[in-house]
Amino acid sequence: MNNKTPHNLTWREEARRTVFTCPVFSVQESSCRSPHNGLKAFTVLDAPDWAIAVPVIETSRGASFVMVRQWRHGSQCLSLEFPGGVLEAGEAPEQAACRELREEAAYIPGKIIKLGAFNPNPAIMSNQVHFFLARDLSAEGGQRLDEDEYVDVEIVPVEEVTRGMGNPPYVHALMGAALALYNRHLKG
Amino acid sequence: MNNKTPHNLTWREEARRTVFTCPVFSVQESSCRSPHNGLKAFTVLDAPDWAIAVPVIETSRGASFVMVRQWRHGSQCLSLEFPGGVLEAGEAPEQAACRELREEAAYIPGKIIKLGAFNPNPAIMSNQVHFFLARDLSAEGGQRLDEDEYVDVEIVPVEEVTRGMGNPPYVHALMGAALALYNRHLKG
Repeated sequence: MNNKTPHNLTWREEARRTVFTCPVFSVQESSCRSPHNGLKAFTVLDAPDWAIAVPVIETSRGASFVMVRQWRHGSQCLSLEFPGGVLEAGEAPEQAACRELREEAAYIPGKIIKLGAFNPNPAIMSNQVHFFLARDLSAEGGQRLDEDEYVDVEIVPVEEVTRGMGNPPYVHALMGAALALYNRHLKG
Repeated sequence: MNNKTPHNLTWREEARRTVFTCPVFSVQESSCRSPHNGLKAFTVLDAPDWAIAVPVIETSRGASFVMVRQWRHGSQCLSLEFPGGVLEAGEAPEQAACRELREEAAYIPGKIIKLGAFNPNPAIMSNQVHFFLARDLSAEGGQRLDEDEYVDVEIVPVEEVTRGMGNPPYVHALMGAALALYNRHLKG
């Protein structure tokens, strides 16, 4: 069952064309040569990278996360998440995480630590999502939201977030991935 | 900053139309009414639900995961993942997790336990991904792969997977989310 070397798992892209575009992503058709030389087309979503901040703050209820509650148009429901968003042109992942934390939750971190990076779904997406621990937070004025952005800030104990993950309002899989990286960092 | 009630975060969808389709998903344009009554269009990916099995087995190296290594066409790289895939028509999430574990890794679980469910990305996707712990595994013949599927099976200690998450070959964010739910179950 383990008789294939990585070489024998590897496909080679031969051509790619854009079949759909919108502001958030483009859809590409990728024609690939299989390890056994067959040719097959796959659909790939091309998008800019994303960055997520995991902001930790000490409260009377113990170690807590600064989280944002907002309506999500894919799931058509409210979702309680770590602050995050799309990298702007020329922006480093760490800068984007700090900017999103500032804009959505009105905190500035004294210390920002890389936790890791994933592809959101390497089967169909091309981009990466970068995760950062944000510590030594200072509150900084109010939110800076876009005109059509509606975001509530909530401080939630780490234990409560952990218990809730995988059930509403903790419906966003990337926040589960963030929690895994945070827990690994704590042990580390 | 916390002066909005959930009601004041909620959008209302007024219309939806399909703007692109392919075998893996369709792209919808969703016209939504904001909490302040503005109208805006959002792009949403509609796809069937997915299921992921987290298969645990005891080895001489301690508690280990049964994982699958395969080429991913979005990231154009090899990815080491928990077995999983798309629900077939009429299939329950738990059945899909067991089927994918059987097909990709050739194991059958004696016990299957729901860990939780997320939306892969509620900002842009409509579907859910369901996570199950698969225990009391029995090896069952060989893999049952599609003609164009190339998958290596690897047994990897839980500690090694945990250390690796967020770096290649552990590039798949949904596997990070799976690990968070597994860890929560252990503490449970």
